[in-house]
Amino acid sequence: MITGKNYIGNLLSSIGKRTFKTFNPQTNLENEIVYTEASEVEIEQATSLASEAFNVFQKVSGAKKSEFLNEIANEIEALGDELIQTYCSETGLPEGRAMGERGRTVFQLRSFANLVKEGSWVEAAIDTADLSRQPIPKVDIRKMLVPLGPVVVFGASNFPLAYSTAGGDTAAALAAGCPVIVKSHPMHAGTGELVASAIIAAAEKTGMPNGVFSNLNSSGIEVGVSLVKNSRVKAIGFTGSIRGGRALYDMAAQRPEPIPVFAEMGSVNPVVLLPNAAQIKGAEWAKTYAGSITLGAGQFCTNPGLILGIKGDDLSNFIQDLSNEIVKIEPTCMLHPNIIGAYESNKAKMQEQSGLETTASFSKETSKNYGRQAITTVEGATFLANTALHQEVFGPFSMVVQCENVQQLEEIISKLEGQLTGTILAENELQNYENIVSALQNRVGRIIFNGVPTGVEVCPAMVHGGPYPASTDSRFTAVGIESIKRWVRPFSYQSWPNELLPDELKDENPLNITRLVDGLKTTKAL
Amino acid sequence: MITGKNYIGNLLSSIGKRTFKTFNPQTNLENEIVYTEASEVEIEQATSLASEAFNVFQKVSGAKKSEFLNEIANEIEALGDELIQTYCSETGLPEGRAMGERGRTVFQLRSFANLVKEGSWVEAAIDTADLSRQPIPKVDIRKMLVPLGPVVVFGASNFPLAYSTAGGDTAAALAAGCPVIVKSHPMHAGTGELVASAIIAAAEKTGMPNGVFSNLNSSGIEVGVSLVKNSRVKAIGFTGSIRGGRALYDMAAQRPEPIPVFAEMGSVNPVVLLPNAAQIKGAEWAKTYAGSITLGAGQFCTNPGLILGIKGDDLSNFIQDLSNEIVKIEPTCMLHPNIIGAYESNKAKMQEQSGLETTASFSKETSKNYGRQAITTVEGATFLANTALHQEVFGPFSMVVQCENVQQLEEIISKLEGQLTGTILAENELQNYENIVSALQNRVGRIIFNGVPTGVEVCPAMVHGGPYPASTDSRFTAVGIESIKRWVRPFSYQSWPNELLPDELKDENPLNITRLVDGLKTTKAL
Repeated sequence: MITGKNYIGNLLSSIGKRTFKTFNPQTNLENEIVYTEASEVEIEQATSLASEAFNVFQKVSGAKKSEFLNEIANEIEALGDELIQTYCSETGLPEGRAMGERGRTVFQLRSFANLVKEGSWVEAAIDTADLSRQPIPKVDIRKMLVPLGPVVVFGASNFPLAYSTAGGDTAAALAAGCPVIVKSHPMHAGTGELVASAIIAAAEKTGMPNGVFSNLNSSGIEVGVSLVKNSRVKAIGFTGSIRGGRALYDMAAQRPEPIPVFAEMGSVNPVVLLPNAAQIKGAEWAKTYAGSITLGAGQFCTNPGLILGIKGDDLSNFIQDLSNEIVKIEPTCMLHPNIIGAYESNKAKMQEQSGLETTASFSKETSKNYGRQAITTVEGATFLANTALHQEVFGPFSMVVQCENVQQLEEIISKLEGQLTGTILAENELQNYENIVSALQNRVGRIIFNGVPTGVEVCPAMVHGGPYPASTDSRFTAVGIESIKRWVRPFSYQSWPNELLPDELKDENPLNITRLVDGLKTTKAL
Repeated sequence: MITGKNYIGNLLSSIGKRTFKTFNPQTNLENEIVYTEASEVEIEQATSLASEAFNVFQKVSGAKKSEFLNEIANEIEALGDELIQTYCSETGLPEGRAMGERGRTVFQLRSFANLVKEGSWVEAAIDTADLSRQPIPKVDIRKMLVPLGPVVVFGASNFPLAYSTAGGDTAAALAAGCPVIVKSHPMHAGTGELVASAIIAAAEKTGMPNGVFSNLNSSGIEVGVSLVKNSRVKAIGFTGSIRGGRALYDMAAQRPEPIPVFAEMGSVNPVVLLPNAAQIKGAEWAKTYAGSITLGAGQFCTNPGLILGIKGDDLSNFIQDLSNEIVKIEPTCMLHPNIIGAYESNKAKMQEQSGLETTASFSKETSKNYGRQAITTVEGATFLANTALHQEVFGPFSMVVQCENVQQLEEIISKLEGQLTGTILAENELQNYENIVSALQNRVGRIIFNGVPTGVEVCPAMVHGGPYPASTDSRFTAVGIESIKRWVRPFSYQSWPNELLPDELKDENPLNITRLVDGLKTTKAL
């Protein structure tokens, strides 16, 4: 049952004065439940509890953390239909998407559970002593990864489950041994509270310390600002707009003790349509891309918002085909009136740019809050001269840039901001475009051959992140088990008594993990 | 031969107007050679060359990078006595130290050469496709670490070889595939130029692109500021003061495209003397610590500047012993009049603090520029109330804090700023001080049992770094092969043609490296 309250550790609390409701974009009506925004007192309580919980939680074994994470997954599944219905009522997204995203969320939690249960992720390294070494004896040094401390996770508007309350950031931080405080996204506060109740139930069942998790409601920016500035908070995870992510990054960098912010932000996900591909498979790609651009009403961070090709008949045909295909697709509901408001306004601003031509625009009547797709096109020189054209329009929108030649194509790619993905569509020609591929590689975190950027597989080889502003720190991924590295630091013990070392570093290797011992990987005891 | 010029890529250049000389603190005289500070034009040239070199260098094989790094080591060794004499004339340090540091520098270069020659450091991961998967097929994703781009390294005053021109930061960045621009430290510009000439010679011999390395002279802050703000620069390495490191961090964070700064800064390296240790081995530790505090005139980042004990006769005896021992040691020359000036002034400021008692101070006449050691002591409550007492005095200085009880000791530890190291001296009592150990672990990057913090072994298990302000990003170490991670980011290829993948990710595994294939570590081909 949803109460509208905050979870301050294991307790429900609503002492604040500010309240708000969520909105159902399908019915175009507010939902009934009233949420109480977290007060300064509750923020103090949550961070203080998290700090105390960290003293215990940082030493909890991988096996116990694994139980906790698996139990969160169980509890989320046990929420059943209430979770799915709440999700749909707060997002306008269909049930299938809700169930798919729940599956992804549970899969992520179980992946991290497996990772920490096995245990080798701590990258244990042991360099044994050599007391006879000249001129000075060599001491015994042992290293492993340890958690940073309390982490604040900002829920994402476009992934109420997989990148919010118990999403990738939270799962990774808990797996690392960091308590988590979620600043719940106001558009889906009910979904957030349900998932929070699952985490709290799991924490209690598996004996985790009170404060290992808190969930704070908020409608404005105040709760987030207060959390980022709180000295007990040691790292931030964020998925959202460039403006929002950069503001948090700046605040965190200006603290007396700066802390790491991993913000996964905007991306137009450039797609390069090479000449043979345009000629041979232009019509096919047009159909595929009409689907990718409108998938989920274009509300994915990997939505293809920019298509780059070489001017000519083949590209003109592709634009025509894409325009024809995209208007055949029925628009779908966007997440919130604010999201569709921003979409329509950003689309209009883009369409006002000099030299931009709109080649397709869904013009039929739709239900309220449905996102009507558009395709635009512009000359390469115009695109180069006007960086307003480089910005993301979050929604079912894409722009085809008609480059004069390969040199201009390369120049455009090299002048793009950092991106999550870059795609190349090619037919037996990729080997002739080494400079194009290189330029694209330097601007992105993931490069795709003959496919679409939408669809982010959760697997160890996935990189979701990229040069700024795709993310604030390209050295980490936000998706997959490697994302745990955002929340840990290496720590060394020198000449430490064996019996007082953590199990990961003891001579006997009781956890049977893979360690680097005197330069060689092994699971053997010393 | 030292020319006093900058290396802009492979060419010597001195078009700037500002000049300076280095100083010999032993003779208290300026050295003869005139150095020309890099001009804005030369900074543009160096960053532009680095950017172009990156296009080539990022794809150079591990085997070739290994040749380059080993050749740098050879060329440094070939500089012979000129390097040692220049080093000594610019630092006042003895020949033995110069030779030891050269050995460490060469060892670091060869360690990184071995790492990239073997090749598994790129953390290759492959998740193979499953086209029959329902509801959507699984695509092929392959990941590896790739270099960030041009890196700027700031030479350190206290390590003219091991943490300067071809020091740990440079070796790690070059190994990663990042071109390096060194902002040479003005106190040892001659040593810097000699080492730069070795790097350039090695680059030419092994066919590295022009611009893979540049060396810029500077006497003020202008060259460094200009480099950090330059959009072609993608990361910063710095070793030095908190004020300097924080200024660079702030500048980098405020860029339109923020970049990572790894600054290894100040630390007082707290040492906890537990009661049994004070009672049983107090005199022994006093002697050992008198040596550690005065080692290299106290000019190490791991110098023990703070000793914490429980008030009582044993601690009083320890303070007396330490005071007696330390004045027996002959002072040695500090690096520069500015360094000894800052030491004397910071020591005096500390000694003026209310409640601080000086128990030992080397008072005999010494040569000019020699650092005269001092031991001070203060009550725990006084220390807690005055954070001025928590600051580092860079030089042969230490403070013993007499805590009322274990609770106060724990409180003091938990209120310290982040530190590189923490040490515990104990005799069959460590198991009774779990909270003390935990509090210390949360404030440091390396914890030492019954030893001294000075002496940083270069090995995979070493962590040199720690919570702010020990370093600006505790998630990385500045020493050891793992420090390469500061300069790389993960990168994914999706459905990429096998023949166009980098060797690290090809089906055949031609480099025979260890990869994570569908979740299992293996050196096998697909």
